[in-house]
Amino acid sequence: MPRYLRKLEELSYNGTDRISSSELGKQMGLTPSQIRQDFSCFGEFGQQGYGYNVDALKDEISTILGVKRGFNAILVGAGNLGHALIGNFNFKSHGFSLVGVFDVDPKMVGEEIMGTHIYDSSEISSFLKEHQVDIAILTVPRRVANSTACELVENGIKAIWNFTNIELAIDDSTVLVEDIHFSDSLMALSYYLSESLDDSSSNQ
Amino acid sequence: MPRYLRKLEELSYNGTDRISSSELGKQMGLTPSQIRQDFSCFGEFGQQGYGYNVDALKDEISTILGVKRGFNAILVGAGNLGHALIGNFNFKSHGFSLVGVFDVDPKMVGEEIMGTHIYDSSEISSFLKEHQVDIAILTVPRRVANSTACELVENGIKAIWNFTNIELAIDDSTVLVEDIHFSDSLMALSYYLSESLDDSSSNQ
Repeated sequence: MPRYLRKLEELSYNGTDRISSSELGKQMGLTPSQIRQDFSCFGEFGQQGYGYNVDALKDEISTILGVKRGFNAILVGAGNLGHALIGNFNFKSHGFSLVGVFDVDPKMVGEEIMGTHIYDSSEISSFLKEHQVDIAILTVPRRVANSTACELVENGIKAIWNFTNIELAIDDSTVLVEDIHFSDSLMALSYYLSESLDDSSSNQ
Repeated sequence: MPRYLRKLEELSYNGTDRISSSELGKQMGLTPSQIRQDFSCFGEFGQQGYGYNVDALKDEISTILGVKRGFNAILVGAGNLGHALIGNFNFKSHGFSLVGVFDVDPKMVGEEIMGTHIYDSSEISSFLKEHQVDIAILTVPRRVANSTACELVENGIKAIWNFTNIELAIDDSTVLVEDIHFSDSLMALSYYLSESLDDSSSNQ
């Protein structure tokens, strides 16, 4: 579903109103029947011979993914990665408002970044008491990843988007954690690359 | 496999020599039999009652994943995200040497970042003629993602680690692309969060 949403947003951005399942399948490397099956569960978005209404479908998938609820997020750790996310990632279009950024660096504290205030990390607990926050984005250095995560959870955070490249040791199993593991992704690439080199050398 | 490798590295770093399949399973949320099955294909690393030798297992998985071949990488786009990767990600321990960084910003060109030279992006083609480069890390802005990817492929790049958050339109199907899609990950979190909120409100 996230991948469909990304594709539909791209189509909408490029001015495409309608798209057939075969064309969408071609662009996404899926069969038309896979696409029809995936979309069949949420009613009639396609008309035989007319294709899917891009915006209606995008709306429906957005709703299913919770994009329209409007979640509040904080980001903890405003180093290069934190800055890169805030600068390049469109939180708003994904249904998230960034309501606060936290860092330990006194040079940053009190500043703003893309319109969001940077607080001292010692203020996390008091901030979370006063504001409704749904998720925390964790971009702190690895060595403080677990202690920061624990502090967030103790203060009521129920969902963490984890960029620290370690598996967080959180006791509370109701806390949702979504990891971005750079190393798993690079290792997958390394594996496929090794395989393809082996293939090409054995074909010579 | 990448996940096992990450875990084994963590264990080795913390001084663990041996681990049983049940303890490893507990720490990774897997059953001991799943673990035994996954490891059975590469011979005898576990001795009944003694558990697995952490370093031997790490070595074996590293070899399978191609970590020991030693790949050369370039990074294209030295903005915040590029800087964050170079500064925080340990390429060496994953078997990659970063041999060049490219950017269009004249203020950066000629500088070094963590010991790697920053070249002007116009030099990509000549650099790739003179150096053996296995993968390109793509951290350029979205609007130039496809044109940069095409230039890389035209100059012989066969594997791309793609951070641009768009699906690259590359004609050559032999080129390996591994995507880091931030938005897919956040949408997954958003979906689970919505579900859990619905559950808790229906339980009240």
